[in-house]
Amino acid sequence: MKRKKIESAIAWSLPDRIYVKGQDLCADLLGKYSFGDMAFFLLMDRLPNRSESMVFNAIAVTLMEHGLTPSAIVAQLTIAGAPEAMQAAVAAGLSGLGNNFVGSMEGAARLLQEAPGDPDADLRAVAERIVADYAARRQIVPGVGHPFHVPVDPRAPRLFEIARENGLEGRHCTLMRLIADALSAQRGKPIGVNATGAIAAVASEIGIPWKIVRGIGVMARAAGLIGHIKEELENPIAGEIMMRAAEEAESSHAIGS
Amino acid sequence: MKRKKIESAIAWSLPDRIYVKGQDLCADLLGKYSFGDMAFFLLMDRLPNRSESMVFNAIAVTLMEHGLTPSAIVAQLTIAGAPEAMQAAVAAGLSGLGNNFVGSMEGAARLLQEAPGDPDADLRAVAERIVADYAARRQIVPGVGHPFHVPVDPRAPRLFEIARENGLEGRHCTLMRLIADALSAQRGKPIGVNATGAIAAVASEIGIPWKIVRGIGVMARAAGLIGHIKEELENPIAGEIMMRAAEEAESSHAIGS
Amino acid sequence: MKRKKIESAIAWSLPDRIYVKGQDLCADLLGKYSFGDMAFFLLMDRLPNRSESMVFNAIAVTLMEHGLTPSAIVAQLTIAGAPEAMQAAVAAGLSGLGNNFVGSMEGAARLLQEAPGDPDADLRAVAERIVADYAARRQIVPGVGHPFHVPVDPRAPRLFEIARENGLEGRHCTLMRLIADALSAQRGKPIGVNATGAIAAVASEIGIPWKIVRGIGVMARAAGLIGHIKEELENPIAGEIMMRAAEEAESSHAIGS
Amino acid sequence: MKRKKIESAIAWSLPDRIYVKGQDLCADLLGKYSFGDMAFFLLMDRLPNRSESMVFNAIAVTLMEHGLTPSAIVAQLTIAGAPEAMQAAVAAGLSGLGNNFVGSMEGAARLLQEAPGDPDADLRAVAERIVADYAARRQIVPGVGHPFHVPVDPRAPRLFEIARENGLEGRHCTLMRLIADALSAQRGKPIGVNATGAIAAVASEIGIPWKIVRGIGVMARAAGLIGHIKEELENPIAGEIMMRAAEEAESSHAIGS
Repeated sequence: MKRKKIESAIAWSLPDRIYVKGQDLCADLLGKYSFGDMAFFLLMDRLPNRSESMVFNAIAVTLMEHGLTPSAIVAQLTIAGAPEAMQAAVAAGLSGLGNNFVGSMEGAARLLQEAPGDPDADLRAVAERIVADYAARRQIVPGVGHPFHVPVDPRAPRLFEIARENGLEGRHCTLMRLIADALSAQRGKPIGVNATGAIAAVASEIGIPWKIVRGIGVMARAAGLIGHIKEELENPIAGEIMMRAAEEAESSHAIGS
Repeated sequence: MKRKKIESAIAWSLPDRIYVKGQDLCADLLGKYSFGDMAFFLLMDRLPNRSESMVFNAIAVTLMEHGLTPSAIVAQLTIAGAPEAMQAAVAAGLSGLGNNFVGSMEGAARLLQEAPGDPDADLRAVAERIVADYAARRQIVPGVGHPFHVPVDPRAPRLFEIARENGLEGRHCTLMRLIADALSAQRGKPIGVNATGAIAAVASEIGIPWKIVRGIGVMARAAGLIGHIKEELENPIAGEIMMRAAEEAESSHAIGS
Repeated sequence: MKRKKIESAIAWSLPDRIYVKGQDLCADLLGKYSFGDMAFFLLMDRLPNRSESMVFNAIAVTLMEHGLTPSAIVAQLTIAGAPEAMQAAVAAGLSGLGNNFVGSMEGAARLLQEAPGDPDADLRAVAERIVADYAARRQIVPGVGHPFHVPVDPRAPRLFEIARENGLEGRHCTLMRLIADALSAQRGKPIGVNATGAIAAVASEIGIPWKIVRGIGVMARAAGLIGHIKEELENPIAGEIMMRAAEEAESSHAIGS
Repeated sequence: MKRKKIESAIAWSLPDRIYVKGQDLCADLLGKYSFGDMAFFLLMDRLPNRSESMVFNAIAVTLMEHGLTPSAIVAQLTIAGAPEAMQAAVAAGLSGLGNNFVGSMEGAARLLQEAPGDPDADLRAVAERIVADYAARRQIVPGVGHPFHVPVDPRAPRLFEIARENGLEGRHCTLMRLIADALSAQRGKPIGVNATGAIAAVASEIGIPWKIVRGIGVMARAAGLIGHIKEELENPIAGEIMMRAAEEAESSHAIGS
């Protein structure tokens, strides 16, 4: 009946010791590595060095909180209906962090990681080709421009600065900025790298595969949602959001009935 | 139609600045506070000092990974059915972190935080009364004993040590240990504080209300679940777990049919 | 390593036959029992007779759709972020069907099912005592009154009528109406049974335990949420709901900055 | 601040009347249409006739319960950890009904609905071309064959029979069977249509777009999961499933430590 052994290389225990990915939890990890570093460890199968830790923690901090996003509203609506289960409100909020929400971040990371790898490549030419390809396919270039943070999304230069201070501002960061330059030239107006593009670039510098970028967003947002659930319990707005939407939707039917 | 203003005190923006709980994200937080510290900030409405940061991060690290727990198995079964939506697999895994899973941790934190607050109280007498009360109600005392980590759950002394090194080993830690002593005396065999009890104690030392303890578990486990989802995609076990359960359940019916 | 046999009495198979709770799916159920009847079967461990089927299906139909409820808005916000995973949008929407959402329906069913069982009891006196008890505890009597459907929630008389036409309008329906009468007398104005109270009453008539009433709500709403997800994909409103909430929340901070 | 009107064409109310998709809930729907019929109505924007109702209900009944599937195990593991929130256990179970779980059903429906539409087409030739195309792409043909229900999945002939009895066994059913014939000829052994293929065929006969087929699976399974949650509360197996998986995973590490 058993076709395959059930295995997990993540964690295991002896009576007096617990191992996480081969490290002794109590002797080697607790008190020595932060929550963010451990998240890096579980995602990447290696502990970060100090520079990688700085960049990875900055990515997570950037992603954890953006005000009343759809996932925050979902978490607040859910705790209002089911106050007995905070965990389910977090779960509901995370469920919408999909293709449309993290698509731009995943897309930018993929774009950078799949760009021609020749170290001698003329990155400016690479960037111009990418922008031309997107234009030809009538697709939006991910990672650049912002409707509100004009002309510059302040998170992007700060993330690049943190990477630079830690010796990790490399080819991916350069390419991301050259893409923004190429697009600006094409459009005839300044378009900057946004938070999404900067996260994609610095995550690529520390070797995070683009397929895992979504996981960082989910993990970081989970912490942020607890804050929104706490706020809903203290100063509720879910009922008001729902009532207004319902009444406006009703109103078109009620008129003339 | 509007009865109440929709407000949120968590995050807001100007074109060139983003605020999180009144702090400038780019100038004051990014690169200065880690992911764990920011989680503390969002939960507690204040930034941690260095000692609190050490203890809070240690709590989160302790909680993020325990091997093939029910929530890990759920996440792995879910990604196996729906590989298109990593976020939904995390959400499903978190949904079971409820009364039975975090009940013991919440219960221990509540016990400590609701114990008689008189600073001159004889904590040993308080502990003995608590143990006697639980015995009279035939309830299990939370936070002590472990079926596998015998005689000592190694996470407990390490967490107390981290609290001590940071000047945060106070009354709650003492009371938790005295409760274990009182229970040991009652049972006539050594019973130690477990990870749950130690987390409850050190979380209480840094002022985390017992009602929020569940949120720390949810947030920490979200990061751990990404690791399990990654492992399922690389070395799948969900199919085998399901197949064995289904075949065993079928077998009682098939016999004699 | 095995302490307990893994069993399930719900469904099992032979190569040429599938059984659901002892019934042959193909020979005895498919084409003979509707989706609603099968839901009754899985919840109650027996197939409904024709009258019970009429009442149970009416309960489910009443519960499946109520316009832009919190769970519908959650499902629409979630599919907007993660269009790749319809199942996750349904899941997110269901997560809020908790104590506050179904509390009133559960509460009314419990009230009726735990009322003094003596068949000769004077139900009017029982109802008056219940209303007095709630008043003394300053609690809201569940199952009566409605802010919008004034003076009568049209679903209540229709559900009672369906029960009556099927010979199932008994003691629970009577008691529910007497409770509304007693409350009306106490308040000096007419207060009627609402949909929640009527569902609780007719569900009690067909023997559904109050603890399972929540499950009927969850199951019925799952079908309704698919309709909302379809509408969001065809005529999206999630972005507008989010944008308005976010802008209003931002506005209090922006003023004076 | 408002860019778009918030609208919903699903349900709206007057004080004495509730409309669902233009029908008066109390006068036209309650007591006249079953839960399954209403689900059809919400998915398809029209009420089913008697024949469509028979076929649609049979599809839903086929999908609602399959024993200890991954989604059932997930629901049982989740309620074991969080017994306070039945809705969250259903939600977790539904989260895995994604590409791999319903992929085959969606794939078969898509295959049938996108097959050359010329009514005079020689369906046998169409089927042979489809099978040849899948072989050339080394892909598995969806909707045929079953590892356990050999040689015939009993649900398939029964679903076809129900369609036939209701005058709805048409071109899609024929094509599905011809695909199985063509594959049998290619492989030199009998391979039959399975439940997935039969559902895809009869759903196509009643006009259900392949993109909505997933929704029927989600809705039907929600009802089935309530049954599994009830069973876990009465005769728990989640702890045993988890314990065995965890111990087996631990065992490879413990050896030699």
